[in-house]
Amino acid sequence: MFAVIWNRLVRAGAAGTLALAASGALAGDPLPSWNDSASKSAIIGFVSGITTENGPGFVPPAERIAVFDNDGCLWSEQPAYFQLLFAIDRIRELAPDHPEWKDQQPFKAVLDNDMKSLAAAGEHGLLELVMASHAGMTTVAFEKVVRDWLASARHPTTGKPYTAMVYQPMLEVLDYLRANGFKTFIVSGGGIEFMRPWTEAVYGIPPEQVIGSSIKTKFDVRDGEPVLVRLPEVNFIDDKAGKPVGINQHIGRRPVMAFGNSDGDLQMLQWTTAGTGARIGVIVHHTDAEREWAYDRASHIGKLDKALDLAVGSGWVVVDMKNDWNKVYP
Amino acid sequence: MFAVIWNRLVRAGAAGTLALAASGALAGDPLPSWNDSASKSAIIGFVSGITTENGPGFVPPAERIAVFDNDGCLWSEQPAYFQLLFAIDRIRELAPDHPEWKDQQPFKAVLDNDMKSLAAAGEHGLLELVMASHAGMTTVAFEKVVRDWLASARHPTTGKPYTAMVYQPMLEVLDYLRANGFKTFIVSGGGIEFMRPWTEAVYGIPPEQVIGSSIKTKFDVRDGEPVLVRLPEVNFIDDKAGKPVGINQHIGRRPVMAFGNSDGDLQMLQWTTAGTGARIGVIVHHTDAEREWAYDRASHIGKLDKALDLAVGSGWVVVDMKNDWNKVYP
Repeated sequence: MFAVIWNRLVRAGAAGTLALAASGALAGDPLPSWNDSASKSAIIGFVSGITTENGPGFVPPAERIAVFDNDGCLWSEQPAYFQLLFAIDRIRELAPDHPEWKDQQPFKAVLDNDMKSLAAAGEHGLLELVMASHAGMTTVAFEKVVRDWLASARHPTTGKPYTAMVYQPMLEVLDYLRANGFKTFIVSGGGIEFMRPWTEAVYGIPPEQVIGSSIKTKFDVRDGEPVLVRLPEVNFIDDKAGKPVGINQHIGRRPVMAFGNSDGDLQMLQWTTAGTGARIGVIVHHTDAEREWAYDRASHIGKLDKALDLAVGSGWVVVDMKNDWNKVYP
Repeated sequence: MFAVIWNRLVRAGAAGTLALAASGALAGDPLPSWNDSASKSAIIGFVSGITTENGPGFVPPAERIAVFDNDGCLWSEQPAYFQLLFAIDRIRELAPDHPEWKDQQPFKAVLDNDMKSLAAAGEHGLLELVMASHAGMTTVAFEKVVRDWLASARHPTTGKPYTAMVYQPMLEVLDYLRANGFKTFIVSGGGIEFMRPWTEAVYGIPPEQVIGSSIKTKFDVRDGEPVLVRLPEVNFIDDKAGKPVGINQHIGRRPVMAFGNSDGDLQMLQWTTAGTGARIGVIVHHTDAEREWAYDRASHIGKLDKALDLAVGSGWVVVDMKNDWNKVYP
C-alpha cells in the first residue's frame, strides 16, 4: 500500500520520477539524510521503477529482496570490527578462569593490550580468540552475553554505544524499502548470533533475515531441558564467495538489490546484479574522515579495491559518504 | 488485522472460545476440513490465546513462528519419500550418459527396477543416488529439473501429481496461522532445493522460509556469468537433532508451534515446546488406510514411535487423521 501511495506521489507532480525524487524538495522525502545526488536518484529511481504496477520493470513484492552487508555498510567498522572488540572484552572477562592465558598467545597479547603481537597472531590467532569467547555455552547464554556487552560497552574513540554508530541514511533506506514491499536481509561476514540479538531493535531486521558466519551448534538435553550448545568449530564463513552461497542457503532466491562497502561484498554484488530484470548494486564508499573514517584500497579493514574498479563497468552505484550524506549517525 | 477480526468473532458469541470454535457451526470456520475434535479445539484455542491482545498469553506478531515438517505432515510420503522417487526417475533419465551404471550398484538396482537390491544398498546407497541425481549442475539448472519433473511425474498408486497429494486440512492450518500474523516455515529432512521451487505456489511458503537438508554449493564465474554449482558433498542433514540446529541457524528464535509426524520431528517438538510462555506441539498420526496410509511404529518411512510415547506426557496434540479430518487431499 505504501508503495502505491509513494509511487502516486512521485508520479503526480513532474515529468520524470527521477527528476522529482532527486529534487529533495518533495514533501515526505523518504531519504532526508541523503543530499540530492546521483546515488540518491539511482536508489529512488530503481525502487520507483520496480514498484510501478504495469510498468516494464515491475517486480512482485515476493521477489523484492534487498541484502545489506553490516560492517561498514550499516554500522561503522573502525578501528576494528566491533565483534573483535567484543571478543577482546570477553577474553578479559573470562581471564580469571583461565590463568594459562597469561603465557599463551594470542590471549597474552589481549591481556597485555599488546596490539602488535595480536596482529602478528594473524587469522589463526583471531579464530582462537573467537572460539574462546564465542563457544562453549548454550545459544541462550550467548545471546545474553551479547546483549549485556552492548548495553555497557562504548566505542574506544567516539564513546558512543556501538548500536548508536549505525548510519542514519542507511536506516532510511531500510525503512524506505520495507515501505515499498521489500524484505530486507543482512548478509555479513560477522557472526550470525552476534548480530541477531539487536538487529530487530536497531535496524528493524528480524533474526530470520540475518545471514552471517557461524560456528557449529549441537542439540543436547541437559537436566531434562533441550539446549543448543555452541561448539568451537567453524560452520560457515559468510564472506566473499561465501556470500552468494549464504544468500542461496538462507533466502533461496536472488536479491534485486545489494548494498556493500568492501571487496568482501564483491561476489554478492556480482551475484545480485547478474540476475535477469532490474537489479542494482550499491557500494558505500568511506570518504568522510571528519564525521566517520576515510579508507578504501589500502585499508586492512573493509578494504575496497577490486569492487571499486569493477563498479563503473558493472553499473554499480558508489555512494560518496562525505558528499552524499548530510548526516552520518542518528 | 485478521487476528483481531477473528478474535472478535470468536469472542463475540459464546461463553468460551474453545467451545465456540469447536462447535464447527461458526460462520467462517477457519478449518472446515477438520471435524470437531480435541485436536481442532487445541489448535484454535492456542491461536486464540496467543493473539488475544492484553490477554495473559499474548505473543507479539514478530514471535509468531510456526514450523512444519513436510514429508508426512504437509504432503504424503508413501510408498517412499517423493524425493527418492524423483531421484530414481532422474537416474533413469541420466542413464544413457552413464553406461557404467548398468553394472554398478545402487544404479543397477534402479535401472533393473530391483527394489530388493536398492533397499540392500542402505543409507550409503541412497546417498549415492542423491548425489548422482542432485549434484553437478548449477542451482538454476537444478531448479528447472525439479519444476519439469513435478509438472509431469505422477504418483505410482494414486496417479495424482505429487503436489496434489498435500493435505487440505494442513493447508487450512497454514492459511489460518498466517491470517493470525504467523510466519510459517517448513523444517524438513528433505532437500531444501527440492522443495523451494514449489512451496510458495502450493503452501504459500516462500523459499526463504524453507529449511531442509542440503549439499554444498560453490560460487564460480563461468563465461563471465556468476553461478552456484551444486557439489556432491553433504552440507547439512535437517533431521532429528539436526532440526533444532536448522531452526536456530535459519530462524534464530524458538518457534511457538511445531507440527510433525515422525520420530524425525521429536527434537523439533522438544525444542519448540520447552520454550517459556505458550507453546504447542502437534503430531499428525497416519491412521487412515483408506484415504491415505496407516502406519506408525513399524514403518520404515515416517516411523512414529518414541514421539508418540512422549506425546501424552509432553502435552503434544496427536491428530487422528482418520477421525479428525473430513477431507485429506484438496
